[in-house]
Amino acid sequence: MNKWQTQLFVDPSDGRVMSLDTYVSAKPYHLLAEALQDDLAAMDRLIQERMQSRNAPLIPEIAAHLVEAGGKRVRPMLTLAVARLFGYRGEDHHRLAATVEFIHTATLLHDDVVDESRQRRGRPSANLLWDNKSSVLVGDYLFARSFQLMVETGSLPVLGVLSQAAAILAESEVLQLSAAASLKTSEEMHLSILRGKTAALFAAAAEVGGIVAGASERQVEALREFGDAFGIAFQIADDLLDYFGDADATGKEPGNDFRERKLTLPVIKAVANASAEERAFWQRTIERGEQKDGDLERALELIDRHGAAAAAREQALEWSARAKGALELLPDHELRDMLHDLTEYVVVRLV
Amino acid sequence: MNKWQTQLFVDPSDGRVMSLDTYVSAKPYHLLAEALQDDLAAMDRLIQERMQSRNAPLIPEIAAHLVEAGGKRVRPMLTLAVARLFGYRGEDHHRLAATVEFIHTATLLHDDVVDESRQRRGRPSANLLWDNKSSVLVGDYLFARSFQLMVETGSLPVLGVLSQAAAILAESEVLQLSAAASLKTSEEMHLSILRGKTAALFAAAAEVGGIVAGASERQVEALREFGDAFGIAFQIADDLLDYFGDADATGKEPGNDFRERKLTLPVIKAVANASAEERAFWQRTIERGEQKDGDLERALELIDRHGAAAAAREQALEWSARAKGALELLPDHELRDMLHDLTEYVVVRLV
Repeated sequence: MNKWQTQLFVDPSDGRVMSLDTYVSAKPYHLLAEALQDDLAAMDRLIQERMQSRNAPLIPEIAAHLVEAGGKRVRPMLTLAVARLFGYRGEDHHRLAATVEFIHTATLLHDDVVDESRQRRGRPSANLLWDNKSSVLVGDYLFARSFQLMVETGSLPVLGVLSQAAAILAESEVLQLSAAASLKTSEEMHLSILRGKTAALFAAAAEVGGIVAGASERQVEALREFGDAFGIAFQIADDLLDYFGDADATGKEPGNDFRERKLTLPVIKAVANASAEERAFWQRTIERGEQKDGDLERALELIDRHGAAAAAREQALEWSARAKGALELLPDHELRDMLHDLTEYVVVRLV
Repeated sequence: MNKWQTQLFVDPSDGRVMSLDTYVSAKPYHLLAEALQDDLAAMDRLIQERMQSRNAPLIPEIAAHLVEAGGKRVRPMLTLAVARLFGYRGEDHHRLAATVEFIHTATLLHDDVVDESRQRRGRPSANLLWDNKSSVLVGDYLFARSFQLMVETGSLPVLGVLSQAAAILAESEVLQLSAAASLKTSEEMHLSILRGKTAALFAAAAEVGGIVAGASERQVEALREFGDAFGIAFQIADDLLDYFGDADATGKEPGNDFRERKLTLPVIKAVANASAEERAFWQRTIERGEQKDGDLERALELIDRHGAAAAAREQALEWSARAKGALELLPDHELRDMLHDLTEYVVVRLV
């Protein structure tokens, strides 16, 4: 199980040859993005507009570097899709989607400074191209802008949800810093960090889409549950793919987390079952960061040997199932089905 | 004009011996803090409470390091004083004062990372005691918390004012980064950065105190004008004191800005009148940062020679006068008189 689905595949729609993983990967995101294309375009215009700064040209420069590299925009798509499936006809969902993307982008900028990353979305990271100072300050600017955008909606419930998510996100970043690279980090602690760092913003993104569209309290609660579970499944999958994914499909060099000494679920599970000699390996490579040739291969082998990868995948599947369950409480709608497929996809690529 | 008012003085209230500057310095802040002591205590409790983090003990640790070092809390005092002088009887002004202090503290944490500072408020800076990573992430946390606090007031006008101030502040930080250490920075550009970095938060602090207390539109406008002018006067004075102040009184080593190659008003004015040889001095020390023994003394001499210090002081006095003028539009109240004295004081210490 060193790679999933790397056989070649021809996309029937445009004849492009790619790995099956790339094709499957493109599909649910692509369909959702297509269904939301007008909304995404409106959001992009808003993002373009709010990244501008008459005085500080460095801001749009750095922000554009990240935004144009184009992550999958999963978070803002949740907001847009949810607002639409509740029949929303206004424009505040564009502001909220842009808010969510700004918060996410600001976090990426600061994360890269903290992790001393060299790559982001397959490009050199901003802290490498400019410097840490610029990444810190432009991140602050995007963060402040995101608050201005959400305030413009004039919805206090929305402001409550998003400002809480931002606080949980920031707290979890600090928590991760303390826990980072310590093999003592329990699976429970790890889940709590992952939930705060990733799932909280997914949950908020889904919730505010519902709130702005006038969803009932029970539905908003279901949206929160959906976003939370989807976010956890998404992140566990991402952490697995970092070890076992196909670089062409993920756009990331495998073993990145290992090199950056990130303690993710596969490693935590492998450590829990490690022999004394294996524990020494993890202490050297993760805790002390002394890595040499062949270490990544050995890490992969250990993660596989103890069934850590299989167990992590199992957990991702469970959270995905929980997310799909929460979707059942939403109105029957084509977009709900697409969210269902997306939820399935983020883990199906692991099978 | 190398030092102002360093003669010794005995405080009649407690017999403490100090420089006159320290005594005068303590006075208007002290009187205002005394008049607002219940409000400040309530704000401090709120700050204590919101700095806590069950999961990440690093947060209260770092935040307490800064908050307990205790700046003069000028910004939150503006909010509290203004709310009170409009007869406010609720509790939202505590939330807003804490919000303003959190935004300010978050900015200090990030500033110290960007400036690679070693001291803050007479103590080693957080980035030195912990590390840059912690300063970045704890700053983010305080920033996020500040938004949560302001959302709790449920006042959309307040949210509009504060989120805009935060965006202007962040934009000016980026702008300063681009302008930093370039002798090409014009006085006009410098004023615009100073206004954004310092005065915007002073203005917002005063404004939201009025808004929450139901001040009229015209009064809120006057509060904005007061805070803006007060902030500019305050910052120009601070920049002058960095060169000519008494370390005992200011709590800062003189020449800090020079060593950190900060282009402040006294230097900009000296550069504008510099001979070719003097220009070469500023290029070497500020632009290229090549400094040696005796350079600070030479800088002081040049700033003095061209009347740059006197001209900067003149400007500070003008802004202070403008701030006092704006206060005239507020209700007659003991606290208004105290704000008047404080406005006078921040520049009187320069005379």
